[in-house]
Amino acid sequence: MIEINRLLIVGVGLIGGSLALALRKAGIVQEIVGAGRSEHNLKRAVELDVIDRYSLNFADEVSNSDIVVVATPVRAMNSIFEIIATTDYHDSIITDVGSVKKPLIELSEKFLDSSYTGLVPAHPIAGREHSGVEAACAELFKNKQTIITPAKNTGSHAVEKVKKMWLAAGSSVAEMDVEFHDEILSASSHLPHLAAFGLVHYIANHKNRQECFELAASGFYDFTRIASSDPVMWRDICSANAVPILQELNGYIRKLQEISTCISVGDIEKIQEIFKGAKNSRDESLRLNSR
Amino acid sequence: MIEINRLLIVGVGLIGGSLALALRKAGIVQEIVGAGRSEHNLKRAVELDVIDRYSLNFADEVSNSDIVVVATPVRAMNSIFEIIATTDYHDSIITDVGSVKKPLIELSEKFLDSSYTGLVPAHPIAGREHSGVEAACAELFKNKQTIITPAKNTGSHAVEKVKKMWLAAGSSVAEMDVEFHDEILSASSHLPHLAAFGLVHYIANHKNRQECFELAASGFYDFTRIASSDPVMWRDICSANAVPILQELNGYIRKLQEISTCISVGDIEKIQEIFKGAKNSRDESLRLNSR
Repeated sequence: MIEINRLLIVGVGLIGGSLALALRKAGIVQEIVGAGRSEHNLKRAVELDVIDRYSLNFADEVSNSDIVVVATPVRAMNSIFEIIATTDYHDSIITDVGSVKKPLIELSEKFLDSSYTGLVPAHPIAGREHSGVEAACAELFKNKQTIITPAKNTGSHAVEKVKKMWLAAGSSVAEMDVEFHDEILSASSHLPHLAAFGLVHYIANHKNRQECFELAASGFYDFTRIASSDPVMWRDICSANAVPILQELNGYIRKLQEISTCISVGDIEKIQEIFKGAKNSRDESLRLNSR
Repeated sequence: MIEINRLLIVGVGLIGGSLALALRKAGIVQEIVGAGRSEHNLKRAVELDVIDRYSLNFADEVSNSDIVVVATPVRAMNSIFEIIATTDYHDSIITDVGSVKKPLIELSEKFLDSSYTGLVPAHPIAGREHSGVEAACAELFKNKQTIITPAKNTGSHAVEKVKKMWLAAGSSVAEMDVEFHDEILSASSHLPHLAAFGLVHYIANHKNRQECFELAASGFYDFTRIASSDPVMWRDICSANAVPILQELNGYIRKLQEISTCISVGDIEKIQEIFKGAKNSRDESLRLNSR
């Protein structure tokens, strides 16, 4: 049953911690080592039984780990790869969990040998508005999808190993082209987050701010749940995936302008058509994805 | 315990049906009569034990009902008030459940005697994305707020009676000026609905529509739950509350344009400030409203 002798998780937060818990539960890892900058956080992860032990100097752990999962915030990735480059990483698989994949490919091209076949960019499409290892849970990836976006040099043995890991964690796995992944995610995930952050920021600066929040029905809180996500992480995503995000955000603004024009000229047939189309699409896609 | 001898509910859908169920449960009504255009729906409401009996000709029931609750879609209100005007409504209280209050005041001024003091415009801020009497539930108003927006001639006895009714249904009750209500709701409720309908419509017409829906995380479905609301009802709300809604929608568009500009020029400090401000406001308001 053991598929992974040693798993190194760099960055034991919500995603890294949940992966550790899920793989422990599946019983496919011999030892899980956590790494990161905050010893306090790593100690907590050991206490919570998320990892077996930790290291403050992860460079020492790379060469004897089967799989290295980089689960740090995007902004830390540059220095992580700078350090990995100094180790004997060649027989280990290196994978990540980031929501934007092109920057990772660029980092690997910058820091890793061109003959290295063990890099497997991956993105588990799962999350919660809470972050940190305290929020980690073994079921986070259940019925979710993980997208693998192989780089030019990625070997099939490495893809297979990472695929097995995510399947064991409860996720389904699909492969996708890097650029296409970043484009799709900018519409399906990044745009909704921007819309929610923007809406709450708009209301928070409204002249009737207090009454607006007080009279907001539960729909408002559902709608804006994702606006409680980590602001720094989302700042980094906006920066890392700026071009596709701008395209989607501007497209959404045009759609809202269309609705504004309809209301302004009283074109109620067109308004109804837009609302009905939206409802039908959502209801249908919800049925198909049976969430 | 009985406070209302006979309650007439015109339009036994989600809201009217839930009010009936909640008041039955509270044991403060002797008899609940349903009225509406669809006999099929009214029969179903009797079967589901939501109402005691029904009438297809509600004009006959107005004068001997203590309270008449108009819970039809907004577009039906004109003809409802046209019919009420032909009855001896003077000793009955007439109230409604609509999410926009100014049009109701206008209808009452058009159709009811200026000496009539029994009109109590009310808005229970509660709902679900499902509609119809089948979706009705006795708990719908629990921990929710109902806003009463008295008209010029509304008497305090009538306000008190309607207030008691909503308290018995589990809601808290507040009074508010009509225009202020419509303004606040356009920001706290109508705008989020437009943002959600717009987002889903945008994605549904995206060139990668299928992949976007497939890869949408649960955040997307939470975010857009309200886009599954009744399109015709929301068309009517846009039409009835067009001026405040346009102001809020255009303000939101400007906020999104501000975010777009920040991303485009790479002003990541400003992006983070917006995201952080949004997260803090939402978290704080959620704590205060303890939802």
